Amino acid sequence: MNDTPGPGAPIRSGIPEHGRVPKYYTVKGELDGLLDELGEGGVLPTERDLAARFEVSRDTLRQALRELLIQGRVRRRGRTTVVAGPKLEQPLSLASYTEGVRRQGRVPGRHLIGLERFPAEAVLAGQLGVAVGDPVWHLERVLLADGERVGLESTYLSVARVPALDRDFEPAGSLYAYLREQLGIGFGAADERIETVLATPREALLIGTPPALPMLLLHRLTRDGEGLPVERVRSLYRGDRFSFTTRLDAPA
Amino acid sequence: MNDTPGPGAPIRSGIPEHGRVPKYYTVKGELDGLLDELGEGGVLPTERDLAARFEVSRDTLRQALRELLIQGRVRRRGRTTVVAGPKLEQPLSLASYTEGVRRQGRVPGRHLIGLERFPAEAVLAGQLGVAVGDPVWHLERVLLADGERVGLESTYLSVARVPALDRDFEPAGSLYAYLREQLGIGFGAADERIETVLATPREALLIGTPPALPMLLLHRLTRDGEGLPVERVRSLYRGDRFSFTTRLDAPA
Repeated sequence: MNDTPGPGAPIRSGIPEHGRVPKYYTVKGELDGLLDELGEGGVLPTERDLAARFEVSRDTLRQALRELLIQGRVRRRGRTTVVAGPKLEQPLSLASYTEGVRRQGRVPGRHLIGLERFPAEAVLAGQLGVAVGDPVWHLERVLLADGERVGLESTYLSVARVPALDRDFEPAGSLYAYLREQLGIGFGAADERIETVLATPREALLIGTPPALPMLLLHRLTRDGEGLPVERVRSLYRGDRFSFTTRLDAPA
Repeated sequence: MNDTPGPGAPIRSGIPEHGRVPKYYTVKGELDGLLDELGEGGVLPTERDLAARFEVSRDTLRQALRELLIQGRVRRRGRTTVVAGPKLEQPLSLASYTEGVRRQGRVPGRHLIGLERFPAEAVLAGQLGVAVGDPVWHLERVLLADGERVGLESTYLSVARVPALDRDFEPAGSLYAYLREQLGIGFGAADERIETVLATPREALLIGTPPALPMLLLHRLTRDGEGLPVERVRSLYRGDRFSFTTRLDAPA
């Protein structure tokens, strides 16, 4: 503890600060100022020009740019790099992806990767409340916002509960609307878990991100009004494009 | 769409699959099997031995290990690498960090980095409901679980509302307990936003993680029972060690 702080120093302080800052990080800060000046959609100068301007090597400059790209501060557009807009703020709620994206004034979309049926293994069977070996659906779709690929969603459902999914569900549409309107299944509650993971090469390819980009992964188990499991979902969202919001209330 | 799927093929399929898998990713899968065999806390063979076993270069092996480290599947312990345990599951709730960690049978702790007072700039003043230039506290602490550094928390409070924070608050303790017991301030609701970010060099140093490790960042604005702002919090958690859980309910 420091009992006699100077002006601007902490009143109380535990761990001492270390002053060394890596060079790429200094460049990143300078780039950040430049991005502010350019504004959303502004095109960055070439790597060569930026390296010359900041008097650093191309490698140092690329490290700074790579972090800005991972953070979603800049984006690639063809062969140029442009200043990105703010991250989408998706509310954590029982509402569908479609509704969440619409609420932000963006056009939601989904692109089908595959719909398969397979026998449930033990963990999934337990989650969906079916017997091991019972048939389950796996619906996999790319999530779109304004036509841009922003995520990948895997939904697992019991075939007994949703028997005609392969026949009368339009895979670009809202699954929640289908369950509600065609089958009268409403949602009561969901348990959700959020973590950060790296995209696998397959996921990166499907979403169109650089491999090893940090992603937000949501695991969800949704139940109907009677508490019976409806779906197990694994949703992967681009960490550079999404954040999630929630309202927490004090226990009554 | 493929209308005549073969056995095991999708019933419906959109985007074709690409079969190429990077070599490091194959090694990562093989390592994953080895980690299962070793079990939590098991010590990995040396990089040299592993590269020989999987018949790959040291660089390829290191890329696979690096991803397993970022994901929290393995951890460094001194000069060895060991199989990590599962991520901590922290509930998103108005309860304190302390309570969340305890609920999982771990010992929570906090280590003071600094307590400073400074004049509020416009954004923070608006969030805390004070005038621009009014004094605010910045309390910065490292979060510990079982003695391990797992996060970094910055809390901002109005000095007018919590005048004696520098005198009668024990910085290793629970701020929420202090506010409740010393000042009678209870929490009514909080708005929270979650995203994934890279640790800055300073943050990585304070938390003791490799730089550029993906982190989970929580922004919180907490209000009391009357709806008045109490605190603005920025909590950074190791992405390899934490996940967050929540229960979503249907609107009444």
